[in-house]
Amino acid sequence: MSLGTTRPSRYPTRTVGEAVSTPRRDPVVHGDDRSGPLSPEQLEAYEARGFHQVDRLLGVDELLALEDAVRRLLDDRSLDADERVVREHAGRDVRSLFEVHRLDPAFAALAADPRLVEPARQILGSEVYVHQSRVNLKPGFRGRGFYWHSDFETWHAEDGMPAMRALSISLSLTPNEPWNGSLMVIPGSHRRFIGCQGETPEAHYQTSLRSQEYGVPSEADLSRLVAEGGIHMVTGGAGSAVMFDCNLMHGSGSNISPLARRNLFIVYNSVENRLVEPFAAPAPRPGFIAARP
Amino acid sequence: MSLGTTRPSRYPTRTVGEAVSTPRRDPVVHGDDRSGPLSPEQLEAYEARGFHQVDRLLGVDELLALEDAVRRLLDDRSLDADERVVREHAGRDVRSLFEVHRLDPAFAALAADPRLVEPARQILGSEVYVHQSRVNLKPGFRGRGFYWHSDFETWHAEDGMPAMRALSISLSLTPNEPWNGSLMVIPGSHRRFIGCQGETPEAHYQTSLRSQEYGVPSEADLSRLVAEGGIHMVTGGAGSAVMFDCNLMHGSGSNISPLARRNLFIVYNSVENRLVEPFAAPAPRPGFIAARP
Repeated sequence: MSLGTTRPSRYPTRTVGEAVSTPRRDPVVHGDDRSGPLSPEQLEAYEARGFHQVDRLLGVDELLALEDAVRRLLDDRSLDADERVVREHAGRDVRSLFEVHRLDPAFAALAADPRLVEPARQILGSEVYVHQSRVNLKPGFRGRGFYWHSDFETWHAEDGMPAMRALSISLSLTPNEPWNGSLMVIPGSHRRFIGCQGETPEAHYQTSLRSQEYGVPSEADLSRLVAEGGIHMVTGGAGSAVMFDCNLMHGSGSNISPLARRNLFIVYNSVENRLVEPFAAPAPRPGFIAARP
Repeated sequence: MSLGTTRPSRYPTRTVGEAVSTPRRDPVVHGDDRSGPLSPEQLEAYEARGFHQVDRLLGVDELLALEDAVRRLLDDRSLDADERVVREHAGRDVRSLFEVHRLDPAFAALAADPRLVEPARQILGSEVYVHQSRVNLKPGFRGRGFYWHSDFETWHAEDGMPAMRALSISLSLTPNEPWNGSLMVIPGSHRRFIGCQGETPEAHYQTSLRSQEYGVPSEADLSRLVAEGGIHMVTGGAGSAVMFDCNLMHGSGSNISPLARRNLFIVYNSVENRLVEPFAAPAPRPGFIAARP
């Protein structure tokens, strides 16, 4: 049954029939800002692979302050019924905290920090704003993974993000090891848009933030991407960071180790790429998932 | 409700009340066979860490023959209802194939191969026999993990293995990467027996081979073991092997990569450590899980 919510798009997805792939129609590095902070070589590598890793972006004091902020939010009973607190399907474990840059000044300060904003501005070739922020908490012993996805696929389909001109910065609040469910990316996968089969149901976000059923790439497409680019596991100490293109295919496995894996994501979008109506969903998602400032 | 099936044991487990830990009461390296194949240094490292890795134990031709053998077993419709074929909870994916050394001559030959038998004999200080063999298949995209456990805990409780005088050899049939759900071990954890809480129900094996609810160590015990020994991820190319002590705490995460992870396990037990009555279960498990030759 068609909801008739799919608009013409340069990146077709959530189709009733077979899913199609589209070559990327937008630059990866926008504009030509050579003034830094990223060197021309770093920009070139980002263009080719779709991500850039930074060691020790945050210091110990900053990490402790952010850990305190996470703890405050988790302990805040006034947030118990807040939509921004997303729990696991089973049990009361918190899976993600959304819009943290509005919930706590520590995250607000970090989202405006030049160490994050300047590379985002350089890569996106314009002023930027925070499209989304969240902390993903992958607890020890039973942390669940996130299946493969392109963020842009969802942001385009459900939030009406017109072009691939956004990026995420993921900051490790705890050590990210090969054995505690670290981020996995498919290098080079950002150069192709993988359309996904299946029309978006209403209020999809209420379940998709726990586990996604729409916007899921096919196994054939994933196999092709991995055959071309392999899999890179993004590991690093607490305080390390990775910036990655909005269309980079990524995911993560489970965490049975005793060590929780907590990462802060801040998504920057170009001010020239503000959201319009969703391209393939009945209604836009709420502002705490996709800001419309 | 107690089934009254717990016998006095040097390694108490499956208790109604709180679980207790016991120091290891058996040697790790039995006897004093210095004639090889393992060097004194390798034996010493095995004694301390509880495992020993070998690169390229199998060659390409052997791997292809074993891959054929796995394929034959998976395609064999006469095994459809066989207890030795263990499927995932959801769907028809095969999780494990048991007693493969009796199901196919390729596995039988390997189980008798001096490259496996000789180190087992040297470490266990006696002649050995195959206690269990199996292939674990962790398919791409949706392979589920195995939670932390000590094999000996189950073999003692449910199979009546008296002493810690057995070891597993795991052979990688596909590449074992950090990102496809490879084996994780806690170095040094074999020196302590972690008793587990909860009495074993009847016919526990019918569900435990899919996901275990009894014989599960507490989070506090796991945290202590990892704080002491850390976590080592056992990666290696197809054909690599790891030999590990029966009481080494190990587990593995999920596999969302397109690359299946298939490992062959052959468990050798000392002929001086033959199974008796279970120490903490209503009845012994069937021979295909725990041989009584």
